[in-house]
Parts: sequence; structure tokens; C-alpha cells
Amino acid sequence: MTNFNFSQYLLDRGQMIEQALSDAVPEVYPPEIVTAMRYSLLAGGKRLRPILCLASCELVGGTVPMAMPTACALEMIHTMSLIHDDLPAMDNDDLRRGKPTNHKMFGEAMAILAGDALLAYSFGLIAGETKAVPPDRVLKAIEIIAHSASHLGLVGGQVVDLAMEDNPNAGEEVLHYIHTHKTGALLKACVLSGGILGGGNDQDLTNLTIYADSIGLAFQIVDDILDVTSTSDKLGKTAGKDIRDNKVTYPKLWGLERSQQKAKELITQAKAVLDEYGDGGKPLQALADYIVQRDR
Amino acid sequence: MTNFNFSQYLLDRGQMIEQALSDAVPEVYPPEIVTAMRYSLLAGGKRLRPILCLASCELVGGTVPMAMPTACALEMIHTMSLIHDDLPAMDNDDLRRGKPTNHKMFGEAMAILAGDALLAYSFGLIAGETKAVPPDRVLKAIEIIAHSASHLGLVGGQVVDLAMEDNPNAGEEVLHYIHTHKTGALLKACVLSGGILGGGNDQDLTNLTIYADSIGLAFQIVDDILDVTSTSDKLGKTAGKDIRDNKVTYPKLWGLERSQQKAKELITQAKAVLDEYGDGGKPLQALADYIVQRDR
Repeated sequence: MTNFNFSQYLLDRGQMIEQALSDAVPEVYPPEIVTAMRYSLLAGGKRLRPILCLASCELVGGTVPMAMPTACALEMIHTMSLIHDDLPAMDNDDLRRGKPTNHKMFGEAMAILAGDALLAYSFGLIAGETKAVPPDRVLKAIEIIAHSASHLGLVGGQVVDLAMEDNPNAGEEVLHYIHTHKTGALLKACVLSGGILGGGNDQDLTNLTIYADSIGLAFQIVDDILDVTSTSDKLGKTAGKDIRDNKVTYPKLWGLERSQQKAKELITQAKAVLDEYGDGGKPLQALADYIVQRDR
Repeated sequence: MTNFNFSQYLLDRGQMIEQALSDAVPEVYPPEIVTAMRYSLLAGGKRLRPILCLASCELVGGTVPMAMPTACALEMIHTMSLIHDDLPAMDNDDLRRGKPTNHKMFGEAMAILAGDALLAYSFGLIAGETKAVPPDRVLKAIEIIAHSASHLGLVGGQVVDLAMEDNPNAGEEVLHYIHTHKTGALLKACVLSGGILGGGNDQDLTNLTIYADSIGLAFQIVDDILDVTSTSDKLGKTAGKDIRDNKVTYPKLWGLERSQQKAKELITQAKAVLDEYGDGGKPLQALADYIVQRDR
């Protein structure tokens, strides 16, 4: 793996995950809800979360099939959070991944229910489809993921985020809470669940925790930067939203340059803890770089 | 247990579950979301679902602590479905259990998020807090419950139910789908998860399946009857809603008398499969009677 080809890796993993996601939600009765679920689930995201989960599982010696149901479940939970966050009662967004948001396509009731179904079903997928992994590890992964999707994780982050609208003077502490929860918690759950399913020891899980915390924060800083510097067209979602909503962001708090610097430092830190894995650490290290270099 | 005192049993189990539910969602940051979650979760329902789960676990030789986290999780999922069903985009209800609905108290965004958090957190509770049960049984319980809460269960039922508004001519087949899914699936998950956690064998689970299917349908028939015959005051939720929404119901399809007769037959059937457990079957048999005799 000395000549690790990251573009090919992203492409291969992306295709593998696309197929697994489609297989995970077959078209059953009633068709309306499955159509709404599949619309957002298969709308072509970067699949960063499932890729992180699979890579973390492999880092510690596990295999892709051991983590694939969990990887798909994590993308379902991420999709649920996007569908619900876009609702009129929340961020009221019309555009997501360059397409009309779920409620714009199917109405609010169906969007709420599609999110609920994805969230519930995701845990059934992990519990029912994970093979060749001791069941106590699967339970631990479920616990971490459940907490990351609850008020202890992304819901908590979203609640504080909504409360911060029109409060541009909120301090770094609140901003840090929002981002470690709204985005960071699920990213961390991806990495840790992968590590646990793959059989990582305590040292592995400590390394993965440092890695996850660093990329999680870097991811959000880059998101904030892109909201300022990019266009809706490129992002596939509404740009300039933070300014419109009068929200505190890292660029507002630190300025663009220091924000970019901070994101780079975090990525350096994330990569450093994986040096001890040699070539085995390359996919996760490349994924860390990808997070700061992405343009959407 | 020959002189089984059902009122005392309901009271004891109710208090035990109230306490466990309150302990399961401690007051953490951010307070707004925990308040919204606890408002609906601790609003004093009948706790029929957790009681069924505990009783099914005991029927097959399990203990109350083995099933308590799952029992609480089931009530959380039920509460989530009530909060989301009451939203303006869905059934648009102002009253639930005699109190303002969640979104009336906390706004739509918070109600959506409180439901999401309860749903996600419920699986963390089962996975993380179930003690003294082999982990493969816990995974099986999670799978059944997850499916029952997804588009394969209550979400599917709600989708078809919403589509049936202003379609009073839908036939018995559609009505049956709605009720076996919207209400029946979660009730069945309560009974089966309890039986699985308690270590039930195949014959036990077959008996519990027949029991659950029968009481699930009876429960819904009685719900339909109460919607016609009771008052909002008694029900603690809006009465006459089915008529207002122009929905097909069992009383509309069969008439009141035949609906009542059918509910009774189903309960007789449910109780009969538990005869072989002697006194051990009495709690679940009494719960079956309670379902048709309740007035709210």
C-alpha cells in the first residue's frame, strides 16, 4: 500500500457503499415512504461517514463486511438528520445536495416520517445484519451510535444551534459545544464503532478518539469557511446561510486565515496518532486531508 | 398467585416504570430538549407497552430487571410516535393525555427533535443498560423493535393512515394494514422482545405472537370504538377525530356491536394460548381483558 491511490480508494468505497445502501432499503409496501427514504439516502453524498467507519474497522484488523451494516446505518442517521434539519420548522432549506429537499419533494409529513423510519431502521440493520462480530461488540457500537444521534449528540447540537440564531455574540464555548455535538458526535461514532467492531484494543480506541475529535472539529471549521467562501451551486446547499441566520461561526470568531490555520493544525494532529500503524493508517490519514481540502 | 390482584399489579408496575423512565432520561445539557422529552415521556400514560414487555419476560421465566431497559425504550418509542403524529404537518392535534401536545408547549422544531432524541436514545438504553441477558438475545430484541418502529411497522401504518384521510371507502384490507402496523407492530415488539430477553423457547414465542396479534387488533378496534363513544375529556385526546378526518374505522365498517363482539373474540383467543402457563399466564391474561375494558 506504499503507493496508496486515494482517488481510486474513494471511488471504490463510494460505489461499494452506494450498492449496500440501496440493498439495505428495498422497495416494500407502502411505496411512498420507501421512495422518500431512498430519495434522500441515495442522493449522492460524499459517504464520508460510512467510509470512515469501514476504514477504522480495517485499521485495527477488521474486515469491510464486519462494519458494512453499521456504515450504512450511520449514513441513514446522517440522512435523517439532514431531512429533519431542512424542515420548515428548523432550518427551512429548499436545496440539499443540489436537489430539492425531502419535504419540498414529498411534503412535511412524509419527510418527518422518512427521517423517523431511517433512524429506527438503522439500528435494526446493525443488530440484524452484522455477521462475524461478537455480539457484545455490536451492542457497544449500537450504544455509541444511539447516544451520538440523541440529545447527548447531534440533537443536542442542533438545539443549541437553533437557539443561537440571531445571537451572533455567543462565545467560543457555545460554538464548540454546537460543533462537537451537531457534527462531531456522529463522526466520532463512525470512527469508534468501526474500531470496536474490528476488535480494536484500548490503545487503538484512544488513538481513534483523538483522530475523530480532531477531524470532527476541522470538518466543522471547513464547513463554516465554505459557507462564506463558496457558492450554493458548488455546495449543493444554500451558501451564506450562517450570515443570513446571523449565527456565530469560526470565521466570524477567528477570521478566515486563523480558521484555516486551525483546521490544518487539527488535521496534522489527527494524522500523527496514526503514524504507528504504518501503511495501515494511510486511508484514514488521506481522509483527514480530504476533509480540509474539499470544496463542498 | 391464585388470587391475582390486577389493580394492585397495574399500580405497582406503573410506579416502577414511572421511576425507571424518569431515571433513564436525567436532566443534562441542553436543558430545553430534556424538558421537552421528559414532558411527553412522563405525562402519565397507561404504560401498557412496558407492562406488556415485563410481563412477557416473566411469563417465560425471565426477571423484571432483564427487560426493564427495553420496557422503557418501548415507551420512549411510543412517546416519539405520539409527539410526531400530533405535529401540524401530521394529525395536527392540540391535546394529548389531557395536556397540550409537545409542539404546543415547546414549538415544532423542539417537538421534532425531542421525538428524534427519544427514538435514538431508546436503542442506546437497550444496548447499554440490559444486564444479565446474553448479548445475542439483546440484539434480536433490538432488531424486532427497530423494525416495528420503522416503515416496516408504525411509520408504514401512519403513512397509509394519512393517505386514507378523506377516503372513507377504503376497504377492510387497508384498515387491517394500518392497524397491524400503526399500533400492532409496536405492541407485538413489546411482547416478543420481552419473551426473547426472558429466554423464551420457540413454542413460547409462537404463543406470544398469537397473543400479541390478537390484543393488537383488539386494542385498535377499541380505540376506534372509543373515538365514537367517548369524550375528549375522558380520552385525554381529541374524540371524534376519525369522523372529522373522514377516516375508515372498524365501527364504520362493521357497526359498533359487531366491532365490540370482534374485540371480545380476539381477547378470548389471546387468553386461551396462555392457559398452559397456569398462574404464570394471569398477568398477560388480565392485561388482555384490560385492553377491551378500558375507557381511554
